[in-house]
Amino acid sequence: MSEYRAPLKDMEFILNNVLEVQNSKIPGYKDLDNEFLVSILKEAGKICSDVLFPLNHIGDSEGCVLENGVVRTPSGFKEAFNKIREDGWTTIDCDTEYGGQGLPYILGTAVGEMIASSNMAFGMYHGLTHGAYSAIHSHGTDQQKSEYLPKLVTCEWTGTMNLTEPHCGTDLGLMRTKAVPQGDGTFKITGQKIFISAGDHDLSENIIHLVLAKIPGGPEGVKGISMFIVPKILVNEDGTLGERNSLSVGKIEDKMGIHGNSTCVMNYDEATGFLIGAEHKGMRAMFTMMNEARLGVGLQGYSQAEVAFQNAATYSKERLQGKNLFGKTNKETPADPIIVHPDIRRSLMDQKSFVEGARAFTYWGAQLIDAASRSDDQSANGLISLLTPVIKGFLTDKGFEMTVQAQQIFGGHGYIEEWGMSQYVRDARIAMIYEGANGIQALDLVGRKLPQDNGKYILEFLGLISKFIKENKELDSGFQTEFLDPLSQAVSDLQSAGEYFLRSGQKNPLNVLAGSSDFMHLFGHVCLGFMWARMAKSALHCLSSDLDDAAFYETKLKTGRYYMKRHLPTTSLHLTRIKSGAECVMALEPEAF
Amino acid sequence: MSEYRAPLKDMEFILNNVLEVQNSKIPGYKDLDNEFLVSILKEAGKICSDVLFPLNHIGDSEGCVLENGVVRTPSGFKEAFNKIREDGWTTIDCDTEYGGQGLPYILGTAVGEMIASSNMAFGMYHGLTHGAYSAIHSHGTDQQKSEYLPKLVTCEWTGTMNLTEPHCGTDLGLMRTKAVPQGDGTFKITGQKIFISAGDHDLSENIIHLVLAKIPGGPEGVKGISMFIVPKILVNEDGTLGERNSLSVGKIEDKMGIHGNSTCVMNYDEATGFLIGAEHKGMRAMFTMMNEARLGVGLQGYSQAEVAFQNAATYSKERLQGKNLFGKTNKETPADPIIVHPDIRRSLMDQKSFVEGARAFTYWGAQLIDAASRSDDQSANGLISLLTPVIKGFLTDKGFEMTVQAQQIFGGHGYIEEWGMSQYVRDARIAMIYEGANGIQALDLVGRKLPQDNGKYILEFLGLISKFIKENKELDSGFQTEFLDPLSQAVSDLQSAGEYFLRSGQKNPLNVLAGSSDFMHLFGHVCLGFMWARMAKSALHCLSSDLDDAAFYETKLKTGRYYMKRHLPTTSLHLTRIKSGAECVMALEPEAF
Repeated sequence: MSEYRAPLKDMEFILNNVLEVQNSKIPGYKDLDNEFLVSILKEAGKICSDVLFPLNHIGDSEGCVLENGVVRTPSGFKEAFNKIREDGWTTIDCDTEYGGQGLPYILGTAVGEMIASSNMAFGMYHGLTHGAYSAIHSHGTDQQKSEYLPKLVTCEWTGTMNLTEPHCGTDLGLMRTKAVPQGDGTFKITGQKIFISAGDHDLSENIIHLVLAKIPGGPEGVKGISMFIVPKILVNEDGTLGERNSLSVGKIEDKMGIHGNSTCVMNYDEATGFLIGAEHKGMRAMFTMMNEARLGVGLQGYSQAEVAFQNAATYSKERLQGKNLFGKTNKETPADPIIVHPDIRRSLMDQKSFVEGARAFTYWGAQLIDAASRSDDQSANGLISLLTPVIKGFLTDKGFEMTVQAQQIFGGHGYIEEWGMSQYVRDARIAMIYEGANGIQALDLVGRKLPQDNGKYILEFLGLISKFIKENKELDSGFQTEFLDPLSQAVSDLQSAGEYFLRSGQKNPLNVLAGSSDFMHLFGHVCLGFMWARMAKSALHCLSSDLDDAAFYETKLKTGRYYMKRHLPTTSLHLTRIKSGAECVMALEPEAF
Repeated sequence: MSEYRAPLKDMEFILNNVLEVQNSKIPGYKDLDNEFLVSILKEAGKICSDVLFPLNHIGDSEGCVLENGVVRTPSGFKEAFNKIREDGWTTIDCDTEYGGQGLPYILGTAVGEMIASSNMAFGMYHGLTHGAYSAIHSHGTDQQKSEYLPKLVTCEWTGTMNLTEPHCGTDLGLMRTKAVPQGDGTFKITGQKIFISAGDHDLSENIIHLVLAKIPGGPEGVKGISMFIVPKILVNEDGTLGERNSLSVGKIEDKMGIHGNSTCVMNYDEATGFLIGAEHKGMRAMFTMMNEARLGVGLQGYSQAEVAFQNAATYSKERLQGKNLFGKTNKETPADPIIVHPDIRRSLMDQKSFVEGARAFTYWGAQLIDAASRSDDQSANGLISLLTPVIKGFLTDKGFEMTVQAQQIFGGHGYIEEWGMSQYVRDARIAMIYEGANGIQALDLVGRKLPQDNGKYILEFLGLISKFIKENKELDSGFQTEFLDPLSQAVSDLQSAGEYFLRSGQKNPLNVLAGSSDFMHLFGHVCLGFMWARMAKSALHCLSSDLDDAAFYETKLKTGRYYMKRHLPTTSLHLTRIKSGAECVMALEPEAF
């Protein structure tokens, strides 16, 4: 009943016309010539629509099952995982030295979007493996790299991240899992970890757990955390699989969504672990992966909105209910498709304008990650670390909201599981929580990223937009009033909020913290406004040369105008809230709740 | 793990101090003396906490099961239903002539809130029965009344409403179910109805289905719809149960939430039905119940936010995570409760200020319903019909949003079903959809209620607020700046929106429709702002006399100030969106989606 079509044209437009990957100086981007790019995206889109999407509802309704200590994934997952593995979809942006294709991260991101839209729970098995790959690639010894990376690149082995414990999630300093050195370079890991995505399953022959733990006698709190490789099955010196390690699945969590992914309680009982990176530097190793991991979660947020939107749009064109009172009506049917009703159209425009803006924002983020990692561009590195909490927090909050709006278009049918809309809502919900709950993203943004290097990166960000506004003043009179003026207004709200933080934060730092979530959303709107201005500029440019696709570019402009008129002004509300300060927020004592 | 405590003091404050039920001239309100009121609320609260709430999670996880054509409700539901029936909780506001207690609807509403908070799916069995009671009470013949009402009042029999068919929900004119007259005053009903809440179950000995159907040869569309009583088991002349009627359960729907309520596909196969009200006047019969039914759904929206908030508040005081950087910290624990963090506090204040405002708004609505039905107050009748779509639409949209915020406070645990927070979100979601999806509420508001009698009721509403502002100017200087000024600003936004509709709607009615949802939300904020101003006034008054409860009234004032500062200004954003008009909303052709 439901459907997913890869939004290839929208993706190409962003990559080719807005971000102009072919003109980029980032090493490796020259590989992304149009023909190659299109063929990759098309092929990936086909697998996502034909193979992964049909398993999405099955994954949700069957879920994962723990039987005799072993986790069974939903019907068809194993075959599909073999298929994407054999076709090389897991290797795109991995290092060629370990069997990867060495292509830019931005391409992996575009493919990742389609995988997430078509089957988010399924995509996580590979996504987490990629995280483990990155950690070992950045911090592992040469021997660890050659031992684990080739298998992780191909997903013959998969990976997990073990951070959370029952009493500690956000505050990892409270961690209790212990790693006792054995004198031979190995450690014995003991403790319980919870919420371990892909913690166990039947998709791969081995699972490489990355586990955070404390070496006794080390510093207190987060400064005493180290990271360990703890394979499910130990690896012999010749690379063959050896003994089972001393770890087990405690249970599979019964979750609101992403049922197709096995979220496990993992028990480590003197399991053999291998230190990765330096002792007590586990948090640093975590943080180096964080931009990518959080961008990946932001992507999940809008990818669920994308597939939910596609289905809502189709439904609204098919479902006949009520006559079109003030426009074209079909005289042969007793009712018109609900898309004729302005409130339905308003909702579809909300979704469409969000998703397309979010995609552009995320791909731009991926481009910055490529610039930082491939050409050691410090400015790109600073900028992406500033934008990461916004990508994660804003895109998952709004992405969830948009899945709810898409579900609403189905009326009562939206509430029935068979129609599939409930799943998008339930799956999207987790993205607001994991990889740092959105409140933590907001805190990271105002507490760490904003003041970083004396505000250097926020100033660079503002400078980028000012430059864009200045350079494009003469472009077109409509462009000025419809795009640049509202963007300037939103930027001015962002600056006012920043100035308020500087001024009132000195008096009372709570004034900054109380406004953190509003600031993250204000920032997010500015970013989407900026992306829409950039997309509109590109669309205008294309319109002047590519008449065949005029309708596509006109649609872009109209969608952008909608965002600028109806959503960007939200910055003003966030500014009002921020300026109301901490007093009213903190007025009650905890006992009053 | 989770909990529900009836918010008795908050309820009493609204009933006694804000709405001053004891001073009301509405017939029957004199029964509501303080001692009686408190004892009823307390007793109901106890049953809700002790009996209904413990079944809430069970209902969600077991769901209803269809076996051999018969629906089995979750464990414990039958015993609990017997309990509330035997204790008379179903009879509160029913007519004494048929075994009811004849008490005001406002009291039934307060009790209904506690039932909905503690177990929404369970409460629907009684709620729908009450709807069927009201329909027969208003439109049935004397014989029908004496035949059905006594059993519906006691819930020995329960009721359902059968409107929706697979191809028609909102647009009932498309209905296909037929009612063929048999010449003996009875009809044969044939057709399929879907989404029938409490369609079948094992809680009562009979089920009285109210079914909308078309008598062949009648007018087209909604003007040809009639309403029928179609009992599951036909009733003999002496009142005993006779033959089974020709109707059956097609299936139980697999829903996102309210699993404890059996949502059925009902098949009528020449089932015997009895006309209720006049032929072809079924819609009118439906509409007379609509204010009550929609207020009941608005109540569900905030009642889920209430119970979710209670649990979030408790969790935030227990969960230790992160140190309080700028305030009191507990030196003996490695972390402080998360309630110390400003963003958590912000979220709790969002929830608290919404729920308390929503409760006051709903009880005020119930008071207007009492005034209209008990004293034929035309002005109250007009006002409640204006406010009904706002109560339903705004309170369910925001109520859902607040359950999501409450769930967020639990971090990863919020996503795990065992903790119960997911259920509040999933259950609350339906309230935005059924009893007229919220887009329909917005349409009803701007298309029907606003222009009704030349805008008489919106002018009365605005007059009420102006009068309040004028009368209380001298109350207290803080009250003026903290409550009256923001309220005036919000009212002025509401007026501007109304004027925009008048002006631009004449040019193009789409300008009104495209702004309908924003208008409903703008209106909702004004109502909550008005309620908070009234609550603040009462709190100030109480503070001057009742020193024992000073902390309670101070908390009210602080919570109100938060709403006025942080939420009421949302009116300005809605006004901006409304004024952006229909052009950007309708810019794309349907094919562009």
